[in-house]
Amino acid sequence: MKLKLTLEYDGSDFRGWARQPGARTVEGVVRDALDATYASWDGLAVAGRTDTGVHATGQVASVDVGGGPPAERAAEALNTALPADVAVVGATVASDDFHARFSATGRSYRYVVFTRRERAPLEASRSLWWPRPLDDDALAAAAALLPGEHDFTAFTPTETSHVRFLRRVLEARWSRESETVLRFEIEADAFMRRMVRVIVGTTLEVGSGRRGLDDFLALLEGAPRERAGETAAAHGLYLIGVDYGG
Amino acid sequence: MKLKLTLEYDGSDFRGWARQPGARTVEGVVRDALDATYASWDGLAVAGRTDTGVHATGQVASVDVGGGPPAERAAEALNTALPADVAVVGATVASDDFHARFSATGRSYRYVVFTRRERAPLEASRSLWWPRPLDDDALAAAAALLPGEHDFTAFTPTETSHVRFLRRVLEARWSRESETVLRFEIEADAFMRRMVRVIVGTTLEVGSGRRGLDDFLALLEGAPRERAGETAAAHGLYLIGVDYGG
Repeated sequence: MKLKLTLEYDGSDFRGWARQPGARTVEGVVRDALDATYASWDGLAVAGRTDTGVHATGQVASVDVGGGPPAERAAEALNTALPADVAVVGATVASDDFHARFSATGRSYRYVVFTRRERAPLEASRSLWWPRPLDDDALAAAAALLPGEHDFTAFTPTETSHVRFLRRVLEARWSRESETVLRFEIEADAFMRRMVRVIVGTTLEVGSGRRGLDDFLALLEGAPRERAGETAAAHGLYLIGVDYGG
Repeated sequence: MKLKLTLEYDGSDFRGWARQPGARTVEGVVRDALDATYASWDGLAVAGRTDTGVHATGQVASVDVGGGPPAERAAEALNTALPADVAVVGATVASDDFHARFSATGRSYRYVVFTRRERAPLEASRSLWWPRPLDDDALAAAAALLPGEHDFTAFTPTETSHVRFLRRVLEARWSRESETVLRFEIEADAFMRRMVRVIVGTTLEVGSGRRGLDDFLALLEGAPRERAGETAAAHGLYLIGVDYGG
Protein backbone atom coordinates (compact mmCIF):
# COMPACT_ATOMS: atom_id res chain seq x y z
CA MET A 1 0.00 0.00 0.00
CA LYS A 2 1.01 3.60 -0.56
CA LEU A 3 1.56 5.50 2.68
CA LYS A 4 1.55 9.26 3.18
CA LEU A 5 3.73 10.04 6.18
CA THR A 6 3.90 13.37 8.00
CA LEU A 7 7.29 13.86 9.66
CA GLU A 8 8.61 16.11 12.38
CA TYR A 9 12.34 16.49 13.02
CA ASP A 10 14.93 18.54 14.81
CA GLY A 11 17.42 19.23 12.03
CA SER A 12 20.31 20.15 14.35
CA ASP A 13 22.16 16.85 14.09
CA PHE A 14 21.31 15.99 10.47
CA ARG A 15 23.14 16.79 7.25
CA GLY A 16 19.76 17.62 5.73
CA TRP A 17 17.18 15.27 4.22
CA ALA A 18 18.95 13.69 1.27
CA ARG A 19 20.96 10.52 1.84
CA GLN A 20 24.73 10.92 1.53
CA PRO A 21 27.41 8.33 2.16
CA GLY A 22 28.99 8.72 5.60
CA ALA A 23 26.63 11.49 6.73
CA ARG A 24 23.70 11.29 9.16
CA THR A 25 20.65 12.37 7.16
CA VAL A 26 16.89 12.30 7.79
CA GLU A 27 16.36 10.15 4.71
CA GLY A 28 18.98 7.75 6.01
CA VAL A 29 17.27 7.17 9.37
CA VAL A 30 13.82 6.97 7.73
CA ARG A 31 15.11 4.28 5.35
CA ASP A 32 16.55 2.37 8.31
CA ALA A 33 13.18 2.58 10.10
CA LEU A 34 11.36 1.35 6.97
CA ASP A 35 13.80 -1.57 6.77
CA ALA A 36 13.07 -2.43 10.41
CA THR A 37 9.27 -2.14 10.04
CA TYR A 38 8.31 -3.60 6.63
CA ALA A 39 9.23 -6.75 4.74
CA SER A 40 9.49 -4.63 1.58
CA TRP A 41 9.21 -0.97 0.62
CA ASP A 42 9.96 1.11 -2.46
CA GLY A 43 9.76 4.57 -3.97
CA LEU A 44 10.40 6.80 -0.96
CA ALA A 45 9.71 10.41 -2.00
CA VAL A 46 9.68 13.64 0.03
CA ALA A 47 8.00 17.02 -0.48
CA GLY A 48 10.92 19.21 0.58
CA ARG A 49 14.58 18.19 0.52
CA THR A 50 15.59 20.27 3.55
CA ASP A 51 19.20 21.44 3.96
CA THR A 52 21.58 20.77 6.85
CA GLY A 53 20.19 22.12 10.12
CA VAL A 54 16.69 22.89 8.81
CA HIS A 55 13.83 21.60 10.97
CA ALA A 56 10.41 20.25 10.02
CA THR A 57 7.06 20.02 11.74
CA GLY A 58 5.09 19.12 8.59
CA GLN A 59 7.39 17.35 6.14
CA VAL A 60 5.54 14.83 3.95
CA ALA A 61 6.93 11.60 2.51
CA SER A 62 5.32 8.89 0.39
CA VAL A 63 6.37 5.28 0.15
CA ASP A 64 5.02 1.92 -1.02
CA VAL A 65 5.16 -0.63 1.79
CA GLY A 66 4.35 -4.29 2.18
CA GLY A 67 4.51 -6.93 4.90
CA GLY A 68 4.18 -4.76 7.99
CA PRO A 69 1.71 -3.09 10.34
CA PRO A 70 -1.57 -1.62 9.04
CA ALA A 71 -1.63 2.13 8.29
CA GLU A 72 -3.24 2.99 11.60
CA ARG A 73 -0.31 1.47 13.46
CA ALA A 74 2.41 2.69 11.06
CA ALA A 75 3.33 5.84 13.01
CA GLU A 76 3.74 3.99 16.28
CA ALA A 77 5.74 1.18 14.67
CA LEU A 78 8.05 3.51 12.73
CA ASN A 79 8.58 5.74 15.78
CA THR A 80 9.96 2.87 17.83
CA ALA A 81 12.58 2.42 15.08
CA LEU A 82 13.35 6.13 14.58
CA PRO A 83 15.83 8.12 16.71
CA ALA A 84 14.59 10.74 19.22
CA ASP A 85 15.06 13.64 16.80
CA VAL A 86 12.67 12.31 14.10
CA ALA A 87 9.06 11.16 14.43
CA VAL A 88 6.18 10.16 12.20
CA VAL A 89 3.28 12.30 13.47
CA GLY A 90 0.72 11.10 10.93
CA ALA A 91 0.33 8.13 8.59
CA THR A 92 -2.54 7.55 6.15
CA VAL A 93 -3.16 5.37 3.12
CA ALA A 94 -2.82 7.37 -0.12
CA SER A 95 -3.88 6.60 -3.68
CA ASP A 96 -1.36 4.59 -5.71
CA ASP A 97 -0.42 7.60 -7.82
CA PHE A 98 0.23 9.89 -4.85
CA HIS A 99 3.79 11.25 -4.84
CA ALA A 100 4.90 13.45 -1.92
CA ARG A 101 6.89 15.73 -4.24
CA PHE A 102 5.10 15.73 -7.60
CA SER A 103 1.58 15.80 -6.14
CA ALA A 104 2.34 18.81 -3.90
CA THR A 105 0.72 22.09 -4.88
CA GLY A 106 2.19 24.22 -2.09
CA ARG A 107 4.85 24.21 0.62
CA SER A 108 4.87 26.36 3.77
CA TYR A 109 7.94 27.41 5.70
CA ARG A 110 8.41 29.35 8.92
CA TYR A 111 11.52 31.27 9.95
CA VAL A 112 12.02 32.29 13.60
CA VAL A 113 14.12 35.25 14.75
CA PHE A 114 14.93 35.84 18.41
CA THR A 115 15.28 39.60 18.97
CA ARG A 116 16.94 40.17 22.32
CA ARG A 117 20.24 41.85 23.13
CA GLU A 118 21.39 38.76 25.01
CA ARG A 119 21.71 35.30 23.49
CA ALA A 120 18.92 32.80 24.28
CA PRO A 121 20.45 29.40 25.19
CA LEU A 122 17.11 27.58 24.95
CA GLU A 123 16.57 29.01 21.44
CA ALA A 124 20.14 28.67 20.19
CA SER A 125 19.44 25.86 17.71
CA ARG A 126 15.81 26.89 17.08
CA SER A 127 15.99 30.49 15.87
CA LEU A 128 18.28 33.19 14.52
CA TRP A 129 19.60 35.51 17.25
CA TRP A 130 19.24 39.13 16.16
CA PRO A 131 20.44 41.58 18.85
CA ARG A 132 20.16 44.73 16.73
CA PRO A 133 17.09 46.94 16.10
CA LEU A 134 14.52 45.83 13.52
CA ASP A 135 11.62 47.81 12.08
CA ASP A 136 8.61 45.48 12.26
CA ASP A 137 6.63 47.66 9.83
CA ALA A 138 9.39 47.61 7.21
CA LEU A 139 9.58 43.81 7.52
CA ALA A 140 5.82 43.56 7.06
CA ALA A 141 5.96 45.85 4.03
CA ALA A 142 8.71 43.77 2.41
CA ALA A 143 6.73 40.56 2.98
CA ALA A 144 3.67 42.19 1.40
CA LEU A 145 5.59 42.51 -1.89
CA LEU A 146 6.12 38.75 -2.18
CA PRO A 147 2.74 37.26 -3.13
CA GLY A 148 2.34 36.62 -6.86
CA GLU A 149 4.59 35.15 -9.53
CA HIS A 150 8.18 36.42 -9.58
CA ASP A 151 11.53 35.54 -11.07
CA PHE A 152 13.53 34.44 -8.01
CA THR A 153 16.91 34.14 -9.79
CA ALA A 154 18.44 36.45 -7.17
CA PHE A 155 17.29 34.15 -4.36
CA THR A 156 19.09 30.91 -5.16
CA PRO A 157 22.81 30.01 -5.35
CA THR A 158 24.61 31.02 -8.55
CA GLU A 159 25.64 27.43 -9.13
CA THR A 160 22.27 25.80 -9.38
CA SER A 161 20.58 22.87 -11.03
CA HIS A 162 17.36 24.86 -11.36
CA VAL A 163 16.39 25.80 -14.92
CA ARG A 164 13.15 27.64 -14.20
CA PHE A 165 13.22 30.54 -11.75
CA LEU A 166 9.58 31.62 -11.73
CA ARG A 167 7.76 30.70 -8.54
CA ARG A 168 4.32 31.68 -7.33
CA VAL A 169 4.16 32.93 -3.73
CA LEU A 170 0.70 32.37 -2.27
CA GLU A 171 1.20 34.02 1.12
CA ALA A 172 4.04 35.75 2.96
CA ARG A 173 4.06 37.52 6.30
CA TRP A 174 6.46 38.83 8.91
CA SER A 175 4.78 39.13 12.32
CA ARG A 176 5.78 39.57 15.95
CA GLU A 177 4.79 36.58 18.03
CA SER A 178 6.03 37.97 21.35
CA GLU A 179 8.28 40.67 22.75
CA THR A 180 11.34 38.69 21.69
CA VAL A 181 10.14 36.49 18.81
CA LEU A 182 9.62 37.53 15.19
CA ARG A 183 8.28 35.02 12.73
CA PHE A 184 8.25 34.89 8.92
CA GLU A 185 5.83 32.54 7.18
CA ILE A 186 5.71 31.91 3.46
CA GLU A 187 3.76 29.58 1.21
CA ALA A 188 4.59 29.04 -2.47
CA ASP A 189 3.89 26.47 -5.15
CA ALA A 190 7.53 25.41 -4.85
CA PHE A 191 10.84 26.77 -3.61
CA MET A 192 14.33 26.67 -5.01
CA ARG A 193 17.32 25.68 -2.92
CA ARG A 194 18.05 28.26 -0.15
CA MET A 195 15.24 30.49 -1.47
CA VAL A 196 13.47 31.03 1.87
CA ARG A 197 16.73 31.74 3.68
CA VAL A 198 17.83 34.33 1.08
CA ILE A 199 14.40 35.97 1.23
CA VAL A 200 14.71 36.09 5.04
CA GLY A 201 18.26 37.50 4.91
CA THR A 202 17.23 40.12 2.38
CA THR A 203 14.04 41.22 4.15
CA LEU A 204 16.05 41.48 7.40
CA GLU A 205 18.22 44.02 5.55
CA VAL A 206 15.04 45.95 4.76
CA GLY A 207 14.04 45.69 8.43
CA SER A 208 17.47 46.98 9.46
CA GLY A 209 17.20 50.00 7.18
CA ARG A 210 20.13 48.83 5.04
CA ARG A 211 17.99 48.19 1.96
CA GLY A 212 14.95 50.02 0.58
CA LEU A 213 11.64 48.50 -0.42
CA ASP A 214 12.20 49.61 -4.05
CA ASP A 215 15.44 47.72 -4.14
CA PHE A 216 13.78 44.61 -2.72
CA LEU A 217 10.98 44.86 -5.29
CA ALA A 218 13.53 45.09 -8.12
CA LEU A 219 15.10 41.83 -6.91
CA LEU A 220 11.83 40.03 -7.56
CA GLU A 221 12.15 40.71 -11.28
CA GLY A 222 15.08 38.42 -12.07
CA ALA A 223 18.09 40.31 -10.69
CA PRO A 224 21.35 38.33 -10.45
CA ARG A 225 22.21 36.49 -7.22
CA GLU A 226 24.86 38.92 -6.04
CA ARG A 227 22.30 41.67 -5.65
CA ALA A 228 20.24 39.90 -2.96
CA GLY A 229 21.17 39.68 0.72
CA GLU A 230 22.83 37.03 2.82
CA THR A 231 21.47 33.54 3.36
CA ALA A 232 19.93 33.46 6.85
CA ALA A 233 21.16 30.64 9.11
CA ALA A 234 19.54 27.24 8.59
CA HIS A 235 18.68 26.67 12.26
CA GLY A 236 15.85 29.26 12.21
CA LEU A 237 13.99 27.51 9.36
CA TYR A 238 11.10 25.02 9.62
CA LEU A 239 9.17 23.23 6.89
CA ILE A 240 5.73 23.46 8.48
CA GLY A 241 3.38 22.02 5.90
CA VAL A 242 2.72 20.71 2.40
CA ASP A 243 -0.48 21.22 0.49
CA TYR A 244 -1.94 18.70 -1.97
CA GLY A 245 -4.66 20.86 -3.50
CA GLY A 246 -8.27 19.85 -3.85
CA MET B 1 31.09 45.44 43.49
CA LYS B 2 28.29 42.96 44.16
CA LEU B 3 26.59 41.80 40.97
CA LYS B 4 23.14 40.23 40.65
CA LEU B 5 23.13 38.07 37.51
CA THR B 6 20.07 36.57 35.85
CA LEU B 7 20.95 33.39 33.98
CA GLU B 8 19.26 31.35 31.27
CA TYR B 9 20.45 27.86 30.40
CA ASP B 10 19.57 24.72 28.51
CA GLY B 11 20.20 22.06 31.14
CA SER B 12 20.41 19.16 28.65
CA ASP B 13 24.19 18.88 28.62
CA PHE B 14 24.87 19.84 32.25
CA ARG B 15 25.16 17.70 35.37
CA GLY B 16 23.10 20.34 37.15
CA TRP B 17 24.24 23.61 38.75
CA ALA B 18 26.64 22.53 41.48
CA ARG B 19 30.30 22.10 40.61
CA GLN B 20 31.54 18.51 40.67
CA PRO B 21 34.97 17.21 39.73
CA GLY B 22 35.03 15.78 36.22
CA ALA B 23 31.46 16.79 35.36
CA ARG B 24 30.23 19.64 33.15
CA THR B 25 28.09 21.84 35.43
CA VAL B 26 26.53 25.29 35.06
CA GLU B 27 28.47 26.55 38.07
CA GLY B 28 31.67 25.27 36.49
CA VAL B 29 31.22 27.20 33.22
CA VAL B 30 30.07 30.33 35.11
CA ARG B 31 33.22 30.19 37.26
CA ASP B 32 35.34 29.86 34.11
CA ALA B 33 33.60 32.89 32.58
CA LEU B 34 34.16 34.92 35.78
CA ASP B 35 37.85 33.95 35.66
CA ALA B 36 38.05 35.15 32.05
CA THR B 37 36.21 38.43 32.71
CA TYR B 38 37.36 39.76 36.11
CA ALA B 39 40.74 40.19 37.78
CA SER B 40 39.15 38.92 40.99
CA TRP B 41 35.82 37.55 42.16
CA ASP B 42 34.48 35.85 45.26
CA GLY B 43 31.37 34.50 46.96
CA LEU B 44 29.42 33.09 44.00
CA ALA B 45 25.93 32.13 45.26
CA VAL B 46 22.85 30.88 43.40
CA ALA B 47 19.13 30.94 44.17
CA GLY B 48 18.30 27.41 42.99
CA ARG B 49 20.76 24.53 42.77
CA THR B 50 19.11 22.88 39.77
CA ASP B 51 19.53 19.13 39.16
CA THR B 52 20.93 17.40 36.07
CA GLY B 53 18.89 18.25 32.98
CA VAL B 54 16.81 21.01 34.57
CA HIS B 55 16.60 24.25 32.55
CA ALA B 56 16.45 27.86 33.70
CA THR B 57 15.12 31.06 32.22
CA GLY B 58 15.33 33.08 35.45
CA GLN B 59 18.08 31.63 37.65
CA VAL B 60 19.74 34.29 39.84
CA ALA B 61 23.34 34.34 41.02
CA SER B 62 25.27 36.85 43.14
CA VAL B 63 29.01 37.42 43.13
CA ASP B 64 31.56 40.03 44.23
CA VAL B 65 33.71 41.11 41.30
CA GLY B 66 36.64 43.45 40.80
CA GLY B 67 38.90 44.54 37.95
CA GLY B 68 36.56 44.04 35.00
CA PRO B 69 33.84 45.68 32.92
CA PRO B 70 31.24 47.96 34.54
CA ALA B 71 27.87 46.39 35.46
CA GLU B 72 26.16 47.64 32.31
CA ARG B 73 28.64 45.70 30.18
CA ALA B 74 28.87 42.63 32.43
CA ALA B 75 26.26 40.54 30.55
CA GLU B 76 27.88 41.11 27.18
CA ALA B 77 31.39 40.42 28.52
CA LEU B 78 30.39 37.25 30.39
CA ASN B 79 28.37 35.97 27.41
CA THR B 80 31.40 36.04 25.14
CA ALA B 81 33.11 33.73 27.65
CA LEU B 82 30.12 31.42 28.27
CA PRO B 83 29.21 28.44 26.06
CA ALA B 84 26.15 28.56 23.77
CA ASP B 85 23.91 26.79 26.30
CA VAL B 86 24.29 29.39 29.09
CA ALA B 87 23.79 33.16 28.96
CA VAL B 88 23.62 36.08 31.36
CA VAL B 89 20.39 37.84 30.40
CA GLY B 90 20.56 40.56 33.06
CA ALA B 91 23.26 42.07 35.29
CA THR B 92 22.75 44.79 37.90
CA VAL B 93 24.68 46.14 40.88
CA ALA B 94 23.25 44.83 44.17
CA SER B 95 23.77 45.96 47.75
CA ASP B 96 26.79 44.45 49.49
CA ASP B 97 24.62 42.22 51.67
CA PHE B 98 22.60 40.77 48.76
CA HIS B 99 22.87 36.99 48.55
CA ALA B 100 21.15 35.18 45.67
CA ARG B 101 20.11 32.31 47.93
CA PHE B 102 19.58 33.76 51.42
CA SER B 103 17.92 37.00 50.23
CA ALA B 104 15.38 35.13 48.08
CA THR B 105 11.78 35.15 49.34
CA GLY B 106 10.28 33.04 46.53
CA ARG B 107 11.21 30.77 43.65
CA SER B 108 9.06 29.98 40.61
CA TYR B 109 9.25 26.84 38.52
CA ARG B 110 7.46 25.73 35.36
CA TYR B 111 6.97 22.16 34.20
CA VAL B 112 6.00 21.44 30.58
CA VAL B 113 4.11 18.32 29.42
CA PHE B 114 3.65 17.51 25.74
CA THR B 115 0.38 15.63 25.33
CA ARG B 116 0.31 14.03 21.89
CA ARG B 117 0.14 10.38 20.93
CA GLU B 118 3.28 10.74 18.81
CA ARG B 119 6.65 11.86 20.12
CA ALA B 120 7.68 15.47 19.43
CA PRO B 121 11.32 15.59 18.28
CA LEU B 122 11.58 19.36 18.67
CA GLU B 123 10.30 19.08 22.27
CA ALA B 124 12.22 15.96 23.25
CA SER B 125 14.65 17.67 25.65
CA ARG B 126 12.22 20.46 26.59
CA SER B 127 9.13 18.73 27.93
CA LEU B 128 7.75 15.44 29.24
CA TRP B 129 6.03 13.38 26.52
CA TRP B 130 2.66 12.13 27.80
CA PRO B 131 0.77 10.13 25.16
CA ARG B 132 -2.05 8.94 27.46
CA PRO B 133 -5.28 10.73 28.41
CA LEU B 134 -5.19 13.41 31.11
CA ASP B 135 -8.08 15.12 32.85
CA ASP B 136 -7.27 18.84 32.79
CA ASP B 137 -9.89 19.58 35.45
CA ALA B 138 -8.48 16.99 37.85
CA LEU B 139 -5.00 18.44 37.36
CA ALA B 140 -6.33 21.94 38.07
CA ALA B 141 -8.13 20.69 41.19
CA ALA B 142 -4.96 19.03 42.51
CA ALA B 143 -2.94 22.20 41.94
CA ALA B 144 -5.57 24.22 43.80
CA LEU B 145 -4.82 22.18 46.97
CA LEU B 146 -1.19 23.30 47.03
CA PRO B 147 -1.20 26.95 48.15
CA GLY B 148 -0.52 27.41 51.87
CA GLU B 149 1.95 25.86 54.30
CA HIS B 150 2.32 22.08 54.15
CA ASP B 151 4.65 19.35 55.34
CA PHE B 152 6.26 18.16 52.10
CA THR B 153 8.10 15.17 53.61
CA ALA B 154 6.46 12.91 50.99
CA PHE B 155 7.85 15.06 48.17
CA THR B 156 11.60 14.78 48.66
CA PRO B 157 13.98 11.80 48.55
CA THR B 158 14.08 9.59 51.65
CA GLU B 159 17.81 10.17 52.00
CA THR B 160 17.85 13.90 52.39
CA SER B 161 19.92 16.60 54.03
CA HIS B 162 16.77 18.64 54.70
CA VAL B 163 15.78 18.96 58.36
CA ARG B 164 12.69 21.11 57.96
CA PHE B 165 9.92 19.95 55.67
CA LEU B 166 7.41 22.75 55.95
CA ARG B 167 7.23 24.94 52.86
CA ARG B 168 4.81 27.71 51.96
CA VAL B 169 3.35 27.48 48.44
CA LEU B 170 2.29 30.91 47.21
CA GLU B 171 0.77 29.90 43.87
CA ALA B 172 0.29 26.68 41.91
CA ARG B 173 -1.55 26.07 38.67
CA TRP B 174 -1.93 23.44 35.97
CA SER B 175 -3.17 25.00 32.72
CA ARG B 176 -3.40 24.08 29.04
CA GLU B 177 -1.27 26.35 26.89
CA SER B 178 -2.25 24.79 23.56
CA GLU B 179 -3.84 21.66 22.14
CA THR B 180 -0.67 19.70 22.88
CA VAL B 181 1.02 21.58 25.73
CA LEU B 182 0.14 21.45 29.43
CA ARG B 183 2.02 23.62 31.86
CA PHE B 184 2.40 23.53 35.64
CA GLU B 185 3.63 26.63 37.43
CA ILE B 186 4.41 26.85 41.12
CA GLU B 187 5.87 29.50 43.39
CA ALA B 188 6.97 28.81 46.97
CA ASP B 189 9.20 30.41 49.58
CA ALA B 190 11.66 27.60 48.98
CA PHE B 191 11.74 24.07 47.55
CA MET B 192 13.41 20.88 48.68
CA ARG B 193 15.42 18.72 46.32
CA ARG B 194 13.17 17.08 43.63
CA MET B 195 10.07 18.60 45.27
CA VAL B 196 8.60 20.13 42.10
CA ARG B 197 9.20 16.96 40.10
CA VAL B 198 7.52 14.74 42.71
CA ILE B 199 4.57 17.16 42.90
CA VAL B 200 4.32 17.00 39.09
CA GLY B 201 4.57 13.19 39.02
CA THR B 202 1.94 12.88 41.75
CA THR B 203 -0.54 15.38 40.26
CA LEU B 204 -0.16 13.60 36.89
CA GLU B 205 -1.39 10.47 38.70
CA VAL B 206 -4.43 12.48 39.81
CA GLY B 207 -4.87 13.67 36.20
CA SER B 208 -4.66 10.07 34.99
CA GLY B 209 -7.35 8.90 37.41
CA ARG B 210 -4.90 6.67 39.29
CA ARG B 211 -5.00 8.72 42.49
CA GLY B 212 -7.83 10.64 44.15
CA LEU B 213 -7.79 14.23 45.34
CA ASP B 214 -8.29 13.09 48.96
CA ASP B 215 -5.21 10.97 48.74
CA PHE B 216 -3.20 13.85 47.29
CA LEU B 217 -4.42 16.15 50.06
CA ALA B 218 -3.35 13.62 52.71
CA LEU B 219 0.18 13.63 51.23
CA LEU B 220 0.47 17.33 52.03
CA GLU B 221 0.26 16.57 55.74
CA GLY B 222 3.62 14.89 56.19
CA ALA B 223 3.09 11.43 54.70
CA PRO B 224 6.24 9.33 54.14
CA ARG B 225 8.03 9.51 50.76
CA GLU B 226 6.87 6.12 49.51
CA ARG B 227 3.26 7.28 49.44
CA ALA B 228 3.82 10.02 46.83
CA GLY B 229 4.11 9.45 43.09
CA GLU B 230 7.07 9.17 40.75
CA THR B 231 9.61 11.90 40.15
CA ALA B 232 8.77 13.49 36.78
CA ALA B 233 11.68 13.67 34.31
CA ALA B 234 14.10 16.58 34.79
CA HIS B 235 13.99 17.76 31.16
CA GLY B 236 10.45 19.20 31.55
CA LEU B 237 11.44 21.50 34.43
CA TYR B 238 12.45 25.19 34.26
CA LEU B 239 13.48 27.56 37.05
CA ILE B 240 11.70 30.65 35.72
CA GLY B 241 12.20 33.28 38.40
CA VAL B 242 13.36 34.26 41.86
CA ASP B 243 11.68 36.86 44.02
CA TYR B 244 13.51 39.12 46.46
CA GLY B 245 10.54 40.60 48.30
CA GLY B 246 10.04 44.28 48.99
